[in-house]
Amino acid sequence: MLKKTGRNTFEFKNSPSIISFASTVGKKEGEGPLGGCFDTVEEDSHFGKETWEQAESEMLLQTVKLAIKKGGLNPQDINCIFCGDLINQCLSTTYGLRSLDIPFLGIYGACSTMAEGLLLASCFAASSEGKFAAATSSHFSTAERQFRFPLSYGGQRTPSAQWTCTASGSVVVSSKGTAPFVRAVSIGKIVDLGITDANNMGAAMAPAAASTIKTYLEDSNLSPDYFDCIVTGDLGVVGSKLLNELLLKDNIDISKQHKDCGVMMFDIKEQDMHSGGSGCGCSASVLCGYFLPKIKTGEIKEMLFAATGALISPAASQQGESIPSVSHLIHISYTNN
Amino acid sequence: MLKKTGRNTFEFKNSPSIISFASTVGKKEGEGPLGGCFDTVEEDSHFGKETWEQAESEMLLQTVKLAIKKGGLNPQDINCIFCGDLINQCLSTTYGLRSLDIPFLGIYGACSTMAEGLLLASCFAASSEGKFAAATSSHFSTAERQFRFPLSYGGQRTPSAQWTCTASGSVVVSSKGTAPFVRAVSIGKIVDLGITDANNMGAAMAPAAASTIKTYLEDSNLSPDYFDCIVTGDLGVVGSKLLNELLLKDNIDISKQHKDCGVMMFDIKEQDMHSGGSGCGCSASVLCGYFLPKIKTGEIKEMLFAATGALISPAASQQGESIPSVSHLIHISYTNN
Repeated sequence: MLKKTGRNTFEFKNSPSIISFASTVGKKEGEGPLGGCFDTVEEDSHFGKETWEQAESEMLLQTVKLAIKKGGLNPQDINCIFCGDLINQCLSTTYGLRSLDIPFLGIYGACSTMAEGLLLASCFAASSEGKFAAATSSHFSTAERQFRFPLSYGGQRTPSAQWTCTASGSVVVSSKGTAPFVRAVSIGKIVDLGITDANNMGAAMAPAAASTIKTYLEDSNLSPDYFDCIVTGDLGVVGSKLLNELLLKDNIDISKQHKDCGVMMFDIKEQDMHSGGSGCGCSASVLCGYFLPKIKTGEIKEMLFAATGALISPAASQQGESIPSVSHLIHISYTNN
Repeated sequence: MLKKTGRNTFEFKNSPSIISFASTVGKKEGEGPLGGCFDTVEEDSHFGKETWEQAESEMLLQTVKLAIKKGGLNPQDINCIFCGDLINQCLSTTYGLRSLDIPFLGIYGACSTMAEGLLLASCFAASSEGKFAAATSSHFSTAERQFRFPLSYGGQRTPSAQWTCTASGSVVVSSKGTAPFVRAVSIGKIVDLGITDANNMGAAMAPAAASTIKTYLEDSNLSPDYFDCIVTGDLGVVGSKLLNELLLKDNIDISKQHKDCGVMMFDIKEQDMHSGGSGCGCSASVLCGYFLPKIKTGEIKEMLFAATGALISPAASQQGESIPSVSHLIHISYTNN
């Protein structure tokens, strides 16, 4: 059962458990400071396939299969998978999961997809028997050509630009298990403060993260000090600074706890990453590769995971529109009470 | 709470109620045999806006607002809305709902979106207090140019082609209320039997509908005769014939109960509609405009609503891929036990 503790915040009477998780990243992500954390670092950016879209589908499939296998499960043990990605019609998801024969609900939350999937899987696991999976992916070469420029154009990147990570993450959630536990979730609203620059996603997404984090802290009556870390998805350097500034205006100081997966993924100066990493797979792989193992062992006891999605649409941008964003939040804990 | 009665089928211990619903259609849909059923028939296909995408966003927004209003509610009474559409990055949803300030989870199920949204809203309403909305839309002019040809190209349509409806539907679901009740749901799997023709969506989707309907009849131990109608989304004339044939191979005869929203929407001969209507908004508006009012009064007592989505992607089609499909099912009833 879900206990509503605010308009959009749900606590679990019995905290579901993240019983398994897996992560895959590409070569560049593997060369970053977190390279040793991921289950798989794939040197071949084509993942053995012919097209970029096939490559991303294959990466997602391998990651989902690994998460299921690490949980000692088979695909037929999964009651439903919540999955989506950045590519039009969630191509990577549809074609990646097609062979698995797992009941499937497609989601679209741009780079907030991992949080949305984990939120839904947790709500189902808290309300029913069964095992519920979530997954997402992104690939530099599928995303950049769809959202920005043809890959071969070789345009210069602006200082605020982020690098779409080639990465994927997947989890399996169940009503019964050990740490990590999902204690509560908060569903975000669409926030749009008028940013129109497709090369400044961090600025577009920071207000959504601020809104959702503030809502959850109020609804749960917890202060930032309660948490070992408050993790955002891919605000990057620019967006992270804005997030802290926005929350400080409401007298909420998360500077000691805040970490951003997009900043953590790369050695930003050394790897020339401008504002940092982005893409659905960025926060998904850092959650599954770096944070969840630390909660499993108790090294991290309480964390908030607030992935953000820039709901940018090239067609809308061409019509002069700004970039709406959304952020969903998961409270993950070493204990279940 | 959700009671799992099969791998992907969930019954509700307390059936949630669809407390409100609304539908909007365009001029051509309004001229069809169901024209008198819809809340709004809009003569202006631009819905007062400048671009087709803005038009679809506006149609969706008006439909959601009307569903909320018809329930005697305000947007701030809604705890979460599940919404998606056909346009890349779910543009119509994002920009349509942006002003409403309602907690939002984006979904992607192509033309199965109404079933997916109603399924998720029902599961949340069965597990928690609160009011959960679902909505979707489609517009002939946004969909055709994205998935098939430029509108001004004026290509000849094949006999199996369907017409993307300009239409939208929205529901509000709550744990407490009167008929219609949602008794159970079944989550579909991705099915792909190798259809590659973007002008024969019905054939691509029929196997997904057959799979989900068969699963639910088995899991629920109910026969087709139990239902007044078994409704599919937009298989059209071609897909409907295939669905019946596929189920007959498993000795399941739904010919007496089967209705398809895509066939019902138009006078197919008179309006020169080839295989019938399609698009997320087709089944959404027919569900909300035609079927739910009849269940509210008890004229229909038991129905299955199995919308199907062709998860077609132009990028994947250009790479020689076939069209995977999915179908989610909702058992809607006049009584709650």
